Amino acid sequence: MAKSGSSKKTSASKAAPKSSARSPLAPARFPTLGQVAGVRLAGRAVGLKKAKGVKDLMVAEFAPGTTVAGVLTRSKCPSAPVDWCRAILPRGKARVLVVNSGNANAFTGNAGDLQVAQTAGEAAHLFGCRAQDVYIASTGVIGEPRAPDYIASKIGGMKKTLTVKSWKDAAEAIMTTDTFPKAASRKVKIGKADITLTGFAKGSGMIAPDMATMLGFVFTDAKIPAPVLQRLVRTAADDSFNAITVDSDTSTSDTVLLFATGQAKGQPRITSAADKALVDFKAALKDIFIDLAQQIVRDGEGAQKFVTINVTGAESKRAARTVGLAIANSPLVKTAIAGEDPNWGRVVMAVGKAGEKADRDKLSIGFGETQITRNGQLVHGYDEAPVAAYMKGDEITIDVDLGVGRGRGTVWTCDLTHGYITINADYRS
Amino acid sequence: MAKSGSSKKTSASKAAPKSSARSPLAPARFPTLGQVAGVRLAGRAVGLKKAKGVKDLMVAEFAPGTTVAGVLTRSKCPSAPVDWCRAILPRGKARVLVVNSGNANAFTGNAGDLQVAQTAGEAAHLFGCRAQDVYIASTGVIGEPRAPDYIASKIGGMKKTLTVKSWKDAAEAIMTTDTFPKAASRKVKIGKADITLTGFAKGSGMIAPDMATMLGFVFTDAKIPAPVLQRLVRTAADDSFNAITVDSDTSTSDTVLLFATGQAKGQPRITSAADKALVDFKAALKDIFIDLAQQIVRDGEGAQKFVTINVTGAESKRAARTVGLAIANSPLVKTAIAGEDPNWGRVVMAVGKAGEKADRDKLSIGFGETQITRNGQLVHGYDEAPVAAYMKGDEITIDVDLGVGRGRGTVWTCDLTHGYITINADYRS
Repeated sequence: MAKSGSSKKTSASKAAPKSSARSPLAPARFPTLGQVAGVRLAGRAVGLKKAKGVKDLMVAEFAPGTTVAGVLTRSKCPSAPVDWCRAILPRGKARVLVVNSGNANAFTGNAGDLQVAQTAGEAAHLFGCRAQDVYIASTGVIGEPRAPDYIASKIGGMKKTLTVKSWKDAAEAIMTTDTFPKAASRKVKIGKADITLTGFAKGSGMIAPDMATMLGFVFTDAKIPAPVLQRLVRTAADDSFNAITVDSDTSTSDTVLLFATGQAKGQPRITSAADKALVDFKAALKDIFIDLAQQIVRDGEGAQKFVTINVTGAESKRAARTVGLAIANSPLVKTAIAGEDPNWGRVVMAVGKAGEKADRDKLSIGFGETQITRNGQLVHGYDEAPVAAYMKGDEITIDVDLGVGRGRGTVWTCDLTHGYITINADYRS
Repeated sequence: MAKSGSSKKTSASKAAPKSSARSPLAPARFPTLGQVAGVRLAGRAVGLKKAKGVKDLMVAEFAPGTTVAGVLTRSKCPSAPVDWCRAILPRGKARVLVVNSGNANAFTGNAGDLQVAQTAGEAAHLFGCRAQDVYIASTGVIGEPRAPDYIASKIGGMKKTLTVKSWKDAAEAIMTTDTFPKAASRKVKIGKADITLTGFAKGSGMIAPDMATMLGFVFTDAKIPAPVLQRLVRTAADDSFNAITVDSDTSTSDTVLLFATGQAKGQPRITSAADKALVDFKAALKDIFIDLAQQIVRDGEGAQKFVTINVTGAESKRAARTVGLAIANSPLVKTAIAGEDPNWGRVVMAVGKAGEKADRDKLSIGFGETQITRNGQLVHGYDEAPVAAYMKGDEITIDVDLGVGRGRGTVWTCDLTHGYITINADYRS
């Protein structure tokens, strides 16, 4: 599987982050992206964001026959666009995607639903499809309705500027507090057919509902029926977008969608997610999802360190994830990492609070290459000096074995720094 | 019900907190406490803390016949003293309480159990009781075993210094990152008998397992059988110690114990938690628990504002608590409060992520006296200016009505500031 868009980081600056500065964990450059037959797109500034000339609307058009699958926020107070996507997803067909930043269209009551209806209706009219083929996502300020036809009125102008290569414009148009556009691309085979996967995402605080919902859109020229696509998306999202956390908060608007245009040449027919011809495609899909998800963590508000937490020995995969997230979301663990302190006692605390089965007297914890505890006690002759040196790096791995079963899982997060407080305490005031 | 030990705050300084400075939300002075017949206690420095001469061990002796009840951490990795208390609590009898700071005796394997056994055994020998009548709690650094007889060897010296009024010494001896000792007292009647309740607590980060477990000990001269006492404690703790949060983390060592010496004169016999003679006592118990719990929040690491979150209209009391804690634990809500920003959108987000039933189109939110949203939309003509002014105070109340039922609950927390990051990122390094 060929990779473009790898996440090599710049040499990280240790200076205190500014909300406007590029994250020290950002990739060195925007990746080279493969075009996807059957996808044309555009990203432009249409005045939704206050800052003049900053891109805030993207539109993508898909070839007839395009299938779609997705996962949406579990928030009990979802935005109007999320409600819309949830309603039309079972049809599994897509011709247009409209995504704006600058306004979340969340907590906007009937006015919000009306805006969605007008956007979908206008796009259907302009692109010659049904309104239920138009997917919509919004991110930005909550609770401030716009004129319901504002976005609809901009789609006609956008339509004229669609191209097959406007990926970066599109990725930039969905940014909010993001300090860099996030995209990735993979090439893979299904049978003998060459398949491309290209996508982009946004999100930094996870989430600041004023600004920073997580959105991810991936496009492929594979031909895959919607029910199969839905199974692939759910599995891949579980090990990627659902395995990251910045601050444990959950957006009203989180949306991940996968569009398959079916334009690839010579692809064998796919009817089941278990088809052996899909093995490489599934791996590539998971890989591109993980790449995008990790880029979101690398843009975590105030993040100075990228943290990988591997949990093994859990009762189940689900239990491993729960424990991993408890560690990743613990403010005490995250501040210890920010302070470059190999404070394994806080990891014990987080394991304990997760509520999953763990054997205190078998618990093993390692930071980087160093095993710190084994069977519930400090390793004999443990020397903190090399671990303290390791903590000064900007990529930290914590391994935890719970000692009760064979379940395992990995979670990614970032540290909790003064930068996070500065960005989130000082933003609106 | 007479009150002493009220929590009047000093005029709050807005200066950035130092980890050693007294919390700006602390009560003006240590309260006057009522003595409890049948309780003698002492607090001294015995060398468990590194700082010389700082109190780190407390011992209390109870009259024969004293009953006990308690609630303990739900952590799956509890400390050795928590395991010990859980094992002996069903007996319901207590003669001695030994609490140390400076070392948590958590994640210490068999050595930790041995230390508990030696402490209980020595106290039983010195005070002429059974080892199972000796309650033990520890707070401080995790994972660093002490010589198993160290605390045991100090109890004899402590025994000589017990008095009926050493409450402040005892309260100070259990402090870790706390910036002030926490205590409260109430007087109440059971029948015609005068009853005293006096207690003390510790905790600030909730919790920093290096330092800041939550411990609470309350003592009364009432005569109440252990099974009844257990019901009273569980109910009162649910609306107090279980309704506060600083940073969502859970200690390996959280312990709340209530001791009843039965030394009050002329008290009617109690056999049931439903006895009408207990009505005032139950109210006083809940009140003293809330007072101590709120003092812990007022000492939250880096706290600059004390926050009350009232949730109404929930499907159940439990659902209201869950939503309240989701709001109270949201880093985005907490940083907005630190930034004096009436960011009600983040409250919507937190309600959504709590996972409890909520009606987006009936959701009502108020900050202080100002109703901000009603029925899922901004109140017509909402003016942010008075709310922004309100946010500059150091006591913030947020009211949320979910619009689906009659369940209600209150949760207390503090804001999330640069002070929290400084204390927790910079502590060990």
